[in-house]
Amino acid sequence: MQRMLIDETPEKIGEKVRLKGWVTIQRDHGKVIFIDLRDRSSVIQLVITKDNADAFEKAKKSCSESAIEVIGTVKERPKNLVNEKISTGGVEVEVESLKILSVAVELPLEVSKAELDLNLQTLLERRNLALRNEKIKSIFFVSASVLDGYRNAMKEKQFTEIKTPKILSAATEGGANFFKIDYFDSEAFLAQSPQFYKQMGVGVFERVFEVGPVFRAEPHFTSRHVNEYISLDAEMGFIDSYEQIMDELEGVIWKIMENVKKQRSDVLKKYNASVPEKMEIPRMKLSDALEILEKEFGKKSEAFDIDPEGERLICEYVKKEKGSDLIFLTHYPTSIRPMYTMPNEEDKELTNSFDLLFRGVEIATGGQRIHSYEQLKKSISDRGIDPDQFKYYLEIFQYGMPPHGGWGMGSERVVQKILGLKSIKEAVLYPRDVKRLIP
Amino acid sequence: MQRMLIDETPEKIGEKVRLKGWVTIQRDHGKVIFIDLRDRSSVIQLVITKDNADAFEKAKKSCSESAIEVIGTVKERPKNLVNEKISTGGVEVEVESLKILSVAVELPLEVSKAELDLNLQTLLERRNLALRNEKIKSIFFVSASVLDGYRNAMKEKQFTEIKTPKILSAATEGGANFFKIDYFDSEAFLAQSPQFYKQMGVGVFERVFEVGPVFRAEPHFTSRHVNEYISLDAEMGFIDSYEQIMDELEGVIWKIMENVKKQRSDVLKKYNASVPEKMEIPRMKLSDALEILEKEFGKKSEAFDIDPEGERLICEYVKKEKGSDLIFLTHYPTSIRPMYTMPNEEDKELTNSFDLLFRGVEIATGGQRIHSYEQLKKSISDRGIDPDQFKYYLEIFQYGMPPHGGWGMGSERVVQKILGLKSIKEAVLYPRDVKRLIP
Repeated sequence: MQRMLIDETPEKIGEKVRLKGWVTIQRDHGKVIFIDLRDRSSVIQLVITKDNADAFEKAKKSCSESAIEVIGTVKERPKNLVNEKISTGGVEVEVESLKILSVAVELPLEVSKAELDLNLQTLLERRNLALRNEKIKSIFFVSASVLDGYRNAMKEKQFTEIKTPKILSAATEGGANFFKIDYFDSEAFLAQSPQFYKQMGVGVFERVFEVGPVFRAEPHFTSRHVNEYISLDAEMGFIDSYEQIMDELEGVIWKIMENVKKQRSDVLKKYNASVPEKMEIPRMKLSDALEILEKEFGKKSEAFDIDPEGERLICEYVKKEKGSDLIFLTHYPTSIRPMYTMPNEEDKELTNSFDLLFRGVEIATGGQRIHSYEQLKKSISDRGIDPDQFKYYLEIFQYGMPPHGGWGMGSERVVQKILGLKSIKEAVLYPRDVKRLIP
Repeated sequence: MQRMLIDETPEKIGEKVRLKGWVTIQRDHGKVIFIDLRDRSSVIQLVITKDNADAFEKAKKSCSESAIEVIGTVKERPKNLVNEKISTGGVEVEVESLKILSVAVELPLEVSKAELDLNLQTLLERRNLALRNEKIKSIFFVSASVLDGYRNAMKEKQFTEIKTPKILSAATEGGANFFKIDYFDSEAFLAQSPQFYKQMGVGVFERVFEVGPVFRAEPHFTSRHVNEYISLDAEMGFIDSYEQIMDELEGVIWKIMENVKKQRSDVLKKYNASVPEKMEIPRMKLSDALEILEKEFGKKSEAFDIDPEGERLICEYVKKEKGSDLIFLTHYPTSIRPMYTMPNEEDKELTNSFDLLFRGVEIATGGQRIHSYEQLKKSISDRGIDPDQFKYYLEIFQYGMPPHGGWGMGSERVVQKILGLKSIKEAVLYPRDVKRLIP
């Protein structure tokens, strides 16, 4: 007898099946024991009566989260008992034999509850168990759909998937946000982004994308920071304008949303969430956004920059005024953008760069890059950095680097904002923060 | 006028097009200049005559690898001049205007040659340019197809894609092959494999897979080692036997090969290579393999293990005897497998583990894992390691961990062996070895 996935059983009334899975709940009614058995496909009710003494004894010991294997017969459930909450609610399995594969000790969490209702610390500390909760687990089906949607969108647009090194000889973009590594006899750094390597990739493949981890030694304790996350990167050559990069990213965003909606409507329902409705994403100069913040919310910014509260408020405003969950902020000042950012042709103090905000949070940063060797070298020197440090990066600009640009997008923030999760850490399987290296 | 991809032009004879790309070759014939223009889609010939003085002057300066933009008219090429080596050989573009987007300096390598014929050191040192060579570049189209083929195969089998942390608090599997990281005020390590986390994933999702970087501080200088590579990992719960893991991996291998053959037959041709023919992959006990090595090749192994030469020879033997490019070696001794490996039920000195060899090299390692808490704890202690070190890993075994197993496969070795590359480093975009951190 082949082992069956639970989802395959419902139509096979009268047939003998072999099932394996975890005990979600075991209810002992004295003469009969009911077990909700769960595998990767679904949940089904098992019925074990005293007539099968051996199975009954073992069912008694099969506490929640034990792994068991049963042989039994598929039966129709009495109509008045049909459980609509589980997809196999119309049938149950009358168990003939039961084998405990692995017994569980008493659980510190009641993982079978619809809502676990734990504070973030406990949720992360007891991660291995908390993740078994159906609602928490389902977050990661959305993550998988976001990754898939991204890759498919990129391939459709003829971007080549690349994998770039995460161990670097130099701190990529300057700055102090790097983790240092002992690399044999030398010192190395963990990649904070694939920035240089994806630009090198443009020189080779014209259009490249990467899905991979990035590492940021930022000592932030916020609901939107983790120190290791999965970045959705892209870089494209021969652009006509920097608006073209936003056009591409906009297309990608809708492909991701479409994919999540198509594949995970059940999860969206669980979270009472929905993906944003497809529409043109508004674009606004940062300076205009700052003006609106002052006029509409009385919020003055000290520097020519927007802080997290400002991002939240401008999203509120755009939602109210234009009905959009997303907005591009553009023309960030040169002083707060990395040295490779292309200055704006009309105002050299500004850049051809953008941030994409989604429901109050920046999810992507991008823009056009400098493609002239001399200009880039000067931009590096102007920041007091020695260009010789970037020899292998700079050399590509001597070999016909076309006008180009791209973006980096935080996959976990996208998931967080789609589902309305309070902290980004809920969208990471095993998150890393300043104090958390385990589990 | 919209910018056209070169591949879109051939059928548009008489139409005006705007093209952007790199100059692969420029041939100055005095009154006329020919340029082979390359973009991500293809290569096309441009014709620039003295009639267009401005374009002609700029074409003169457009040395190899310069990025240019042209406007011109698509013409049929004289039949006797059709270039069969390029897909757009039947047409050319008569240029009316030319703009140099980014001029290249003189190249230290002639990247347009069919074969670059460089030694490995130069190939890696001049990586940014060498990658522009069509033959070298095409390796990474195969890489992309291997990754894609793997993910699709896994999703088809209901494995959930996960992303696990690469920064760890403890050296995963013991041993010294770890890179140490300064992580704020503590010490951390780079993941040598997602082993513990994918097993944790089984407890949650039953079946999981991951495509991600792994980091090995192995001081090896060989044609099959790099210190950072992309591992294709999988782990599955509720297995009936450990042969089932090999069955799954075998299915995955053929899906990958099929995908490469379907998408990249042009690259295979370039390398005079082919994917292995689909057949049942033979399985052989390690002890039998060692016996064959002694009998057939006079090769005695000092320990109960197989070395790289042995792997090469046994592959030769299997190819000759069974016509297979692949072989599973099974039943490795407990002493040379990690502490989580399931001992064989018939002989406790052996394990339910395997290596998969492909054309002389081990490409994957896998097996069944111990799922009993007590047994695993003992296995750890028996190796002189303190189980308390693995608290967060061990705890999952208290909560109904089903019989399970999986594998890790080196994506670059798969690519190397498909194409017959001498060194694995040729299959890594920017490889990392003991002495190489750049580019």
